[in-house]
Amino acid sequence: MGITIRKIAKDLKLAVSTVSKALRDSHEISDETKRLVFEHARKLQYVPNPYAGSLKNRTTRNIAIVLPEVADTFFSNAINGIDSVAQAKGYHVMVYLTHESREREESILEELRSGRVDGILISVSVGVKRDSAVHARLAQDLPLIFFDRVCDEVATAKVLTDDFEASYKATTHLISKGCREIIFLDTAAGLSITDQRRSGFLKALADHGIKNGDRHVVQCSEDENESLDTIQKVLRRKNKVDGVIGSVEKLAIQTYTACHACGLSIPRDVKVLAFSNLQIAALLAPPLTTVVQPAFEMGKAAATLLFKALARKVDLRTERIVLPSVLHERESTQ
Amino acid sequence: MGITIRKIAKDLKLAVSTVSKALRDSHEISDETKRLVFEHARKLQYVPNPYAGSLKNRTTRNIAIVLPEVADTFFSNAINGIDSVAQAKGYHVMVYLTHESREREESILEELRSGRVDGILISVSVGVKRDSAVHARLAQDLPLIFFDRVCDEVATAKVLTDDFEASYKATTHLISKGCREIIFLDTAAGLSITDQRRSGFLKALADHGIKNGDRHVVQCSEDENESLDTIQKVLRRKNKVDGVIGSVEKLAIQTYTACHACGLSIPRDVKVLAFSNLQIAALLAPPLTTVVQPAFEMGKAAATLLFKALARKVDLRTERIVLPSVLHERESTQ
Repeated sequence: MGITIRKIAKDLKLAVSTVSKALRDSHEISDETKRLVFEHARKLQYVPNPYAGSLKNRTTRNIAIVLPEVADTFFSNAINGIDSVAQAKGYHVMVYLTHESREREESILEELRSGRVDGILISVSVGVKRDSAVHARLAQDLPLIFFDRVCDEVATAKVLTDDFEASYKATTHLISKGCREIIFLDTAAGLSITDQRRSGFLKALADHGIKNGDRHVVQCSEDENESLDTIQKVLRRKNKVDGVIGSVEKLAIQTYTACHACGLSIPRDVKVLAFSNLQIAALLAPPLTTVVQPAFEMGKAAATLLFKALARKVDLRTERIVLPSVLHERESTQ
Repeated sequence: MGITIRKIAKDLKLAVSTVSKALRDSHEISDETKRLVFEHARKLQYVPNPYAGSLKNRTTRNIAIVLPEVADTFFSNAINGIDSVAQAKGYHVMVYLTHESREREESILEELRSGRVDGILISVSVGVKRDSAVHARLAQDLPLIFFDRVCDEVATAKVLTDDFEASYKATTHLISKGCREIIFLDTAAGLSITDQRRSGFLKALADHGIKNGDRHVVQCSEDENESLDTIQKVLRRKNKVDGVIGSVEKLAIQTYTACHACGLSIPRDVKVLAFSNLQIAALLAPPLTTVVQPAFEMGKAAATLLFKALARKVDLRTERIVLPSVLHERESTQ
């Protein structure tokens, strides 16, 4: 791979330090010179050693995405959004999966303090506290942006959807279809998004004169079988449930499975809707009414903000972006 | 972060070089000593500088996954399998999305030659040649393993499923259900997996006396709308199609949409099956018969092999792992 910065400098009749700075995207070098250097470097198939560079510059051109899982349409679409920005900037994307374990998330974040990445986009696991010290400390060391699932009390940027409003609207939709015994399937405690969605749900019930809203909230387990069991028990109880809101995608799938198992017809016996980015919601039996978050756009917005922070063009502590979700009415709530 | 290797060495009464080697997982140091060093380092919250290490050792503790997309259940489950092995080994995972662009894939691979990662797991894009020079050159520089979509003629390890046999079996299943005008929805040319699946399909037709198999193969576009259009035209043609095989997941979804649009009933008018890892195939209207690849296991097998190669315990040029797929019969082919 014998091409060196020296060779590029000689060919272009530039100083070695100029070429070096241009390749590091230094603000001291003009865009025109950078363009010349990059073009020539590409022509010569010059491959820089990323580690030699990073020791001196303290930049890695890596960003980290830390998230609970990848086999979920919201997160996979968010990754696509982030990647679209990172690739355009010539950055590399490291993906860290926490599998909903707070301990694993904390040990990943500790590792990231070592300087392997220039910045972090994170959607936190179940069980992470809203004032998590580990997250707060990392946000002081490095640009860190929360997306979707956030630590409310950590002072750094957050990219969100209007979870409270979207949930209020979804609940009102079920009420308008005649539902009175609506249950809200909650995840294991502690997620910022489900807190917001639960609050929107309870507010809508109260505004429509449905009392004791809390008994309409059902906590589901992270374990799929336990969760299915819980949902089936609720569907079989005396006060006949006539509406279900899945606060996350997998709870909607479990509700469909549970309704099949209990011999309940959707939407005749029970109407179902869920927060979900499933592209094939429309092909389910019956087609599922969904609250769709703009996952790709959220990823893109979060990554764009991160690159602004890396260019020192923004103070992350004061940034907060809220994007709207959209209710798609389908047969499951008719 | 002032903790240094020197401090750890002093506390444990070991030589600095011993601690350094233990932290680099050197074979010169006993497991017992490594355990002591790692435990103490963790207790002190010692954070190594990964770049200082990598200049000397030429290891990064990063591996790359290069794949067409992440919003696909096969790939997202494969990432989970890879990650389960990488996390256990204390490695970091970099994810590179090619979005089915050969050009982008090649430029990513060129970048990876710079030493940012210790090894690569790759599933190639549409359009990559089976003897791709870029892939062959990289496989000489670094441990590289193909999974699922491979370059047949590049001499390195491949982790595959039995695509020919699985497709033969799926086709025979449709024939046993009375289908005669079966079409095979192919992706844009050039994928190793769809080559195998097409061959298995054609062999099954021939073995059951169905002639001119080639006219049963329909090429679909990467563009979703064009592809939908093609499928609708085929479903409306004179020789009434009574069976459809989607060679990849998204073609099955498109077939459902196309059948709806054409007013065709599945399975009464046309029976449908697809290669797919969709967890909710059973909840579609009607439930979809699928050929399921063991995605998580493939990812795990590929990553395990990569770590064997990094420990120089295997010659990748001769490795080939083939895992079986499973046919799940559901209502769409009854």
